[in-house]
Amino acid sequence: MAMTTDADIADLDAADPLAAFHDAFSLPDGVIYLCGNSLGPPPRNAGERLTHVTAQQWGAHLVRGWTEDGWITLPRRVGDKVARLIGAKPGEVAIADSTSVNLFKLLAAACGLRPDRTTILSQADNFPTDLYIAQGLAGLSRGHTQLRTVPAGAIADAIDDDTAVVMLSHVDYRTGALLDMKKLTAAAHAKGALALWDIAHSAGALPVDLNLAAADFAVGCGYKYLNGGPGAPAFLFVAERHQGDARSPLSGWMGHALPFDFAPDYRPADGITRFLCGTPVVLGIAALEVGLDLALKADPDALRHKSQALGNLFIARVEALCADDELTLISPRAAAARGSQVCLTHRQGYPVMQALIDRGVIGDFRAPDIMRFGFAPLYLSYGDIVEAARILADVLATGAWDQPKYHQRAAVT
Amino acid sequence: MAMTTDADIADLDAADPLAAFHDAFSLPDGVIYLCGNSLGPPPRNAGERLTHVTAQQWGAHLVRGWTEDGWITLPRRVGDKVARLIGAKPGEVAIADSTSVNLFKLLAAACGLRPDRTTILSQADNFPTDLYIAQGLAGLSRGHTQLRTVPAGAIADAIDDDTAVVMLSHVDYRTGALLDMKKLTAAAHAKGALALWDIAHSAGALPVDLNLAAADFAVGCGYKYLNGGPGAPAFLFVAERHQGDARSPLSGWMGHALPFDFAPDYRPADGITRFLCGTPVVLGIAALEVGLDLALKADPDALRHKSQALGNLFIARVEALCADDELTLISPRAAAARGSQVCLTHRQGYPVMQALIDRGVIGDFRAPDIMRFGFAPLYLSYGDIVEAARILADVLATGAWDQPKYHQRAAVT
Repeated sequence: MAMTTDADIADLDAADPLAAFHDAFSLPDGVIYLCGNSLGPPPRNAGERLTHVTAQQWGAHLVRGWTEDGWITLPRRVGDKVARLIGAKPGEVAIADSTSVNLFKLLAAACGLRPDRTTILSQADNFPTDLYIAQGLAGLSRGHTQLRTVPAGAIADAIDDDTAVVMLSHVDYRTGALLDMKKLTAAAHAKGALALWDIAHSAGALPVDLNLAAADFAVGCGYKYLNGGPGAPAFLFVAERHQGDARSPLSGWMGHALPFDFAPDYRPADGITRFLCGTPVVLGIAALEVGLDLALKADPDALRHKSQALGNLFIARVEALCADDELTLISPRAAAARGSQVCLTHRQGYPVMQALIDRGVIGDFRAPDIMRFGFAPLYLSYGDIVEAARILADVLATGAWDQPKYHQRAAVT
Repeated sequence: MAMTTDADIADLDAADPLAAFHDAFSLPDGVIYLCGNSLGPPPRNAGERLTHVTAQQWGAHLVRGWTEDGWITLPRRVGDKVARLIGAKPGEVAIADSTSVNLFKLLAAACGLRPDRTTILSQADNFPTDLYIAQGLAGLSRGHTQLRTVPAGAIADAIDDDTAVVMLSHVDYRTGALLDMKKLTAAAHAKGALALWDIAHSAGALPVDLNLAAADFAVGCGYKYLNGGPGAPAFLFVAERHQGDARSPLSGWMGHALPFDFAPDYRPADGITRFLCGTPVVLGIAALEVGLDLALKADPDALRHKSQALGNLFIARVEALCADDELTLISPRAAAARGSQVCLTHRQGYPVMQALIDRGVIGDFRAPDIMRFGFAPLYLSYGDIVEAARILADVLATGAWDQPKYHQRAAVT
C-alpha cells in the first residue's frame, strides 16, 4: 500500500459515509479510542435513556412495567434487532445473561442434540472463558463429555464422528484472525457435528451471516462493538430448525412455556424464549438498545469497508514510521482475513501500551507481549488512525515508554 | 387485636422510626404500593447514580473504568454490603447473574460436595424457578441426581442419608409463611446434608442470619425488597468453610484465579470470587447499590417490628371491614411465622386485584385465586395500610370488581 498523504487522509474523512456517527458517541477530548473491541464508549443518549426508563417506566409504572412498558418481551424484541446485524431471522435471537452463561446453555443444548457423541472441539487459542465454560459443562457430565482443543488451522481435520459440537470464535481475540464460518460449519455438518460460534468480536464490526453459514448456535457480547455498556447483557442465537428439540439446562422460569402459571414442572417455551432463564435485566437491555439502534443505522458494507481500511492504514503507517525491530504484526495482513483489530507484539508491549494510553491512544495489552488496537468504524476517523500510528512511532523512537510508571502493572483482582 | 382508631394510626406514623425513608423513594402520587415483594420502587437518586456512572465513569474512563472506578471488584464490594443484611461475613457474598443462575451454580456446588448422594430435596410449594433449575441440573447428571419435593411441613422428616442438599425458600412466595432456617439447616446437617436457602423474599424485609443458622449456601434477589430495579443482579452466599472445596460449574473467566493471564485451563479463584462467571453488570450493580445503601441505613429490628405491625394491622382491618365470606387468609396469622406479606384468597381474586390496582392499591395476583399484599417497611405508612384495607372492603362490598375490564387477563407472554 502506497503511503497516503495528509491530503488523502482528509479526503477519506470527508468522503466517509459513517463520519456522522462520531458525534453520536460520548468520547473524552484528546482520546483516540482503539479499545472498542473490549468496551465500546457510551452512545451520547445512553444516560438519557436510562433516566427515562428509571423515572418514566420503573418509577411511574412500578411492577406494571412488565406489561405496560413491555419489559417482559424485551429479550426477544431487542434480540430481533441483534438478529438483523448477524444474519438471523426474527425469533432466532434473545438478549440474556452473559456471554459465558449463554455459552453454557447452548453448549449443553448442542451436546443434548448429539447424545452419543462425547467431544466438544474448539480452537486452542479460543477466548479462555469459552474453554472454561466447556470444561465446566464437561465436569457435570460424569465423564461423558470432554473438551478437545487443536490449533485453529487444524479444526476442520479434527472433526470426527465423536464430535458433538465445534465451538469456535469467529475472530481470534489475540490476533484478530477471522475464521471462515461457512466453511468450518460445513465441515462440522459433514461429520454430523453441530457448530457453535462466538461472535463477540465480530457482531457490530463486520458482517456476520449466521444463516448463510448455516450456523447452529451462536453467542455474542453486548459491550464491545454494540456499545451497550460495561457488563451489558449478551445475546444468543439458536437456528430455528433446532428450537423445537434443543433444551437449555438453565431452565429458569422465564424460559417456561407458561411462567405465570407457576406450575411445579418445567416445560420449555416454544422458540427462542426457552433459552431465557431468570428475570430480564431491564436497565441493561435498555442501554444496549441505544447502542444497537446506532449500529442498525449504519450500512453494513460501509462498516466493513471502513473497518478494513482503518486496519490497512494503521498497518501501513506503523510499518512506514516505526523502525523498531521488536515490533511484529501478528494479525493477518490481508484485510479479508482479519476482524476489526490489528495486533502487534513487542517485548516491551506492556510499558509501550501504558505510554500510549498516557498520550490518549487507548488500546490494550494481552500477555505476554500483545498490543491490541481495535478499529470501531462508527466513531473513528482516518485521521485518528494516522495520529495513533504517529504517536506509537514517537513513543518507540524516543524510548518514552521506558519510565518506571509505565512498567508498573495494575493489580486487576 | 383490638381495632385501632384513626388517632392510634396517626400516632403510629408519627412515632415510626423508619418514616423518613419514605421520601427516599420515588412513588407516584395516589399509589399505595403493596408489591415491593415483586419489584421495589426506585430510590429517588437511582437515576442520578446511573447518569453518573454512565457519564463520569463509562464515558470518562472508558475501558479504564474496570480499574479506575473499581468495576472489577463491584461484585465483591457490593456483595459485602448485602452480607451485612443477611448475617454473612465479608467475603461470603457476591453480586452476580440472576437468582436462577446463581441457584444453578450453588446447587451444583452442593451436589459436588456430596458426590455419593443423589437427592435434592425441596418444598413442593417452592418458587417454581427453583424447582425448574433443580430439574435442569438433574437433567445434566445422566441419571445420578434427582429432585424430590415434599410439603414444607414434611421436609425435616424427609431428609435422609441420600439427601445431598435441602433447597428451601425462606418465605413462601404464595402464602408468606416463614420457614425456620436454623432448625431446618440443623436437620439437614444432622443427616449429613447441606442446606441452600433462597432468601429472595426475606433479604431487606426481615432479619436473616445465615451464619447464625449455619446455612451452607444462599441465593437472593436484588429487585424485591432491595429495590435494585427490574431484573437487578442477584446475589449468592457461600459459607466460608465451603469456599475452598465448592466449585461452580459455570466456570467463567471472572471466577478464574487469574482471569487476565488468559490461561487455557480453568483454575478457580480463592473465596467467593470463584462463583462469578461472566463480566460484572456494572450499571445493574450501581443501581442496586443505591437501594442497598438505603436498606443498610435502617435499623433491622425496627424493620422487622414495622413489617409485622403492618401485616397485623392489615389482617385486623380486613377482617373487621370485609364481610365477604369468600375472603380467606392463607398467610400465617402469627406475625412471627410470616415474612413481609399477607395473602388472601378469593374466588374472584383476579378481578378484585385489578379493581384495587385501578384504585391505586397495587398488590398482585397469583393463580388460581391468591391476592398478595407485600409490606415493605421502608416506604409504607400505617395510614397506607388502613386505606388499602378500606378500599379492599369497598371494592368487595360494592361489587366494583365485577366489571368486564377487570376480568380481562393481560397476556404476559
